[in-house]
Amino acid sequence: MSSSSLDELINALKCLPGVGQKSAQRMALHLLERDQQGARRIAEAIDDALEKVRHCSRCRNLSDADLCAICADHEREQNTICVVETPADVLAVESSAAYLGRYFVLLGRLSPLDGYGPAQLGLEQLEQQLADGGVEEIILATSATVEGDITAQYIADFAARHGVSSSRLARGIPLGGELEFVDGGTLSRALTGRQQFE
Amino acid sequence: MSSSSLDELINALKCLPGVGQKSAQRMALHLLERDQQGARRIAEAIDDALEKVRHCSRCRNLSDADLCAICADHEREQNTICVVETPADVLAVESSAAYLGRYFVLLGRLSPLDGYGPAQLGLEQLEQQLADGGVEEIILATSATVEGDITAQYIADFAARHGVSSSRLARGIPLGGELEFVDGGTLSRALTGRQQFE
Repeated sequence: MSSSSLDELINALKCLPGVGQKSAQRMALHLLERDQQGARRIAEAIDDALEKVRHCSRCRNLSDADLCAICADHEREQNTICVVETPADVLAVESSAAYLGRYFVLLGRLSPLDGYGPAQLGLEQLEQQLADGGVEEIILATSATVEGDITAQYIADFAARHGVSSSRLARGIPLGGELEFVDGGTLSRALTGRQQFE
Repeated sequence: MSSSSLDELINALKCLPGVGQKSAQRMALHLLERDQQGARRIAEAIDDALEKVRHCSRCRNLSDADLCAICADHEREQNTICVVETPADVLAVESSAAYLGRYFVLLGRLSPLDGYGPAQLGLEQLEQQLADGGVEEIILATSATVEGDITAQYIADFAARHGVSSSRLARGIPLGGELEFVDGGTLSRALTGRQQFE
């Protein structure tokens, strides 16, 4: 309206997830009026990331190099693979600081109708890694949905053929979860999986 | 962690207002995995806006040119000036489609302790425009706060000296506002300013 390059910036910012007209306006005006340095930093970071980021050749996570920092880290346990659906899931598991092995990122989950079959998820690559030996356990951290469960089952099947044990993340009540707000399905799983009080 | 240029992108996105670690992560992964074209568009729009956007020499709003689109539009009424605090306020008034005059953007409000005096708000420039003649009414659309009121009072004073009438936006209950959720101050203003039923 008042400035065409401002309008274009507002429209461009709407490409961000969860950002509508009002937020985009607020962001654009903030960047131009109060944080031009931050604006420059964002533009450079985007250019840089678009140019450099690719998928790790071993675990398919996002990485600057052919091998991502986790795969290249020899301190990490090489005999455990945590299978997740997205790079965001890797960040989530890493933030728990409870896992020291390596990852395999499916970049999706089995969903033939959407065109996601074993080939798209790199499952041959994963099976090859199990066939090569050295892996003792595979942790199936796919999402707690029907497709996630099917994907986990599919991987557990070929892991068993290679003599690798599979486990699935525990289901139950989240930390700090109040019982009255927990849905029936979760509660049912939490009851089935109840643990002896020590 | 896994990718240093990804980390930098996440950190850079935190410069946006209202965006924390989690949202920045989601945005960065969305841009890299699902919308690289959108990412490129954002980076270009930022570069473009940083290079081109400046303040309109007449109304101080953000603009690509020396004179903004509104000031350059001769269809708009030249005898009414709406005084607002920020460029975002101009967008808000424009979206009401109820105003056809021109604007003056203070880029702040009188607040001596924060270093905002008449000079910072361009009030000499505004007074000069009133002195030059041709302006009949000035609408004081500064915010409904103590500083906003003081700023409005200050401008109304010198407008009166130049024989220009001033008005202030009506205060009352917002459209769709339920009485029980309206605060006491607003309700008090709405009562004082009640209008005859026709």
